[in-house]
Amino acid sequence: MTGSGASTALLTDHYELTMVAAALAAGTADRRCVFETFARRLPDGRRYGIVGGTARVIEAIADFTFGDDELRELADHEVVDAATLDWLANYRFRGDVDGYPEGELYFPGSPLFTVRGTFAEAVLLETLVLSILNHDSAIVSAGARMVSAANGRPIIEMGGRRTHERAAVSSARAAYLAGFATTSNLEAGRTYTIPTAGTCAHAFTLLHDSERDAFAAQVEALGSDTTLLVDTYDITQGIETAIEVAGTGLGAIRIDSGDVGVLARQARAQLDALGARNTRIVVSGDLDENAIAALRAEPVDAYGVGTSLVTGSGSPTAGMVYKLVEVDGRPVAKRSSHKESRAGWKAALRRCKPTGTALEEVVYAVADGTPERGEHDRELVEPMLRGGQPVGDPPTLDESRQRVRDGLVSLPWEGLKLSHGEPAIPTVYQ
Amino acid sequence: MTGSGASTALLTDHYELTMVAAALAAGTADRRCVFETFARRLPDGRRYGIVGGTARVIEAIADFTFGDDELRELADHEVVDAATLDWLANYRFRGDVDGYPEGELYFPGSPLFTVRGTFAEAVLLETLVLSILNHDSAIVSAGARMVSAANGRPIIEMGGRRTHERAAVSSARAAYLAGFATTSNLEAGRTYTIPTAGTCAHAFTLLHDSERDAFAAQVEALGSDTTLLVDTYDITQGIETAIEVAGTGLGAIRIDSGDVGVLARQARAQLDALGARNTRIVVSGDLDENAIAALRAEPVDAYGVGTSLVTGSGSPTAGMVYKLVEVDGRPVAKRSSHKESRAGWKAALRRCKPTGTALEEVVYAVADGTPERGEHDRELVEPMLRGGQPVGDPPTLDESRQRVRDGLVSLPWEGLKLSHGEPAIPTVYQ
Repeated sequence: MTGSGASTALLTDHYELTMVAAALAAGTADRRCVFETFARRLPDGRRYGIVGGTARVIEAIADFTFGDDELRELADHEVVDAATLDWLANYRFRGDVDGYPEGELYFPGSPLFTVRGTFAEAVLLETLVLSILNHDSAIVSAGARMVSAANGRPIIEMGGRRTHERAAVSSARAAYLAGFATTSNLEAGRTYTIPTAGTCAHAFTLLHDSERDAFAAQVEALGSDTTLLVDTYDITQGIETAIEVAGTGLGAIRIDSGDVGVLARQARAQLDALGARNTRIVVSGDLDENAIAALRAEPVDAYGVGTSLVTGSGSPTAGMVYKLVEVDGRPVAKRSSHKESRAGWKAALRRCKPTGTALEEVVYAVADGTPERGEHDRELVEPMLRGGQPVGDPPTLDESRQRVRDGLVSLPWEGLKLSHGEPAIPTVYQ
Repeated sequence: MTGSGASTALLTDHYELTMVAAALAAGTADRRCVFETFARRLPDGRRYGIVGGTARVIEAIADFTFGDDELRELADHEVVDAATLDWLANYRFRGDVDGYPEGELYFPGSPLFTVRGTFAEAVLLETLVLSILNHDSAIVSAGARMVSAANGRPIIEMGGRRTHERAAVSSARAAYLAGFATTSNLEAGRTYTIPTAGTCAHAFTLLHDSERDAFAAQVEALGSDTTLLVDTYDITQGIETAIEVAGTGLGAIRIDSGDVGVLARQARAQLDALGARNTRIVVSGDLDENAIAALRAEPVDAYGVGTSLVTGSGSPTAGMVYKLVEVDGRPVAKRSSHKESRAGWKAALRRCKPTGTALEEVVYAVADGTPERGEHDRELVEPMLRGGQPVGDPPTLDESRQRVRDGLVSLPWEGLKLSHGEPAIPTVYQ
């Protein structure tokens, strides 16, 4: 099993290392443990969550090894003792991972990424597993709401400038997973073979002596199938100039400011009157899922979405936790407060109607065996790593994208409502 | 000038490249341009913002070059034509940058990062400049509010698991810049020489046969000056066991759940009664600046902050834009809507009282020269790059951290209020 190469081993919290050191010294480091990743609740009144980042986690685990640089850093700052350094030098994850495949729906308590191994080998992965799943799941969950609000119209992801430069790449991947059509992010295009798109910004218009000069330059370089941004000065004038320069075969116009619904209607009428009946209208500018839904009745052909996607539309993190639930076969759980967890190694199945509509999430103790399963119910947990090695070929990004689509179709209709509410289906513990 | 090595050139939007291609073809790529980075408003009723990420941007610009891999990617996907590929192969930024030093306060309209050069060389940097400044400024601005609410008590950054794994590293840096004492993030420790800290999680207690065994193992490995997490089972029992095991010289206890104010008071009384008068109390668990402020009167010695820091405490992006304001000496601006920008190359000074308290942010046209300047007023814009090369030695992270501290002291007292409101000082255009 290989990852992308660079060590991920320091993308973790100091205390994961000190716990390993203390457990090695105490002789408890080799106890067999089960750590379960789940969300206690969905963020902010959401009806469903979507698991994102699983493939990235699996790759990051393969790269979780301590090279000379990492060991020297830990030694120099006395993070751990010499015996622990020796142990870390030989570390690679040799345990098992089971979880929900990427793109699957999840609900409160869904055991979506379960790591089994010795305490030391499994605890080390906590921070990295959570970072990736919390980030990517937050983005894909927000993105899916936008895709569902767009009701078949394509969405272009263009939020890279509103988030960390590396989170931007993962956000573009998560957006594509959610069903976005393209991204503006070139590194995401390279790393994940996602289609990229882009034409020109207002700066390009301002650079030139006139809007006409700018449009002519763009059409000359990019062809008349390009998208001309018409709202730098006066939109009506901009559209007229756009068609004069590019002809009625112009690919699209983009409107990035103002009341885009009203402007789109006016633009459609103007384009039609000019004979540019096939010229599409792209709108952008602070759109989120609610704004997209509000534009359903307008003659909009595509949406550009930035800030709201990369910030998880109000919920920038999925709030998942990584909890020790079993030690040497003994169920364990913190029990001092409301932040309780349910002890024991668990799996899950989703009860469904014959139509495929989801009814409930059944989370059950693995020790008790699978509950009675109806013909249409689905087991949710799949083996991902055994002895640290991948089980079969991981799903492609396009397969996971299809899983998101299938999942949204399987929700009861209330589940697609954008308003705050309860999870679309209840979680039942057995 | 050198950066960290790996190319940053694809951490950008597709349209930056197509604009370069179109401008090269049109003969307008070499026009002298000024791009200004600023925030139209502060997020979410904030009173001030703090510039974060400047040193990271300068390094990323040095790494913004197109190697064989990047050029092949652009060629394979026909992002740009052959002539543009040739131009990109020779690209490095050779222009000038001026801006607010990292850690400086900013307000709406502050020209905090201004890039001058040809259109092509300057427009290419837009996405990367914004990604870094928007992310890091959002985090340091949120962090500073927490530091100021903590009123001198140390804060430990522990939010890495709630954000993208690479954003986690930059967030730890931003938190330190804001005045946090330490971070849990080991990669931030390595990359930025920030002190890291951490001891044990609930999992460590659950791993052992009893809380007593766990505490004994931890004290054995980490010494009695460690921090014991006492809320896995019963807190009162946990504290009693902690002192029995570690003695009255125990460094600290940590409480991670429940009503931490009440629990801290009870814990202090119990520790004092047990003779552990110097054992500190660390609290954590979903703290933000308001929760920290509410704990001012409680016997808390340090705070652990995670989610709220890395998500910008409600404002995960600073909302800065990168606008073309001048072409060949001619001021330019978009003018179709409310999203107007002010044309022309600008600088700024901050008018201050003799006491050093800030009075107003004066943003002025460079062409008009510096406005009359009082003895206590400060010029805010400094040269950073000339001909693509750094001007002098950049400030160290500790120097920028001191600048944050100085900035907070210079705010009028209303500026430190946590409640929503207007910017602490007005922006005046001259």
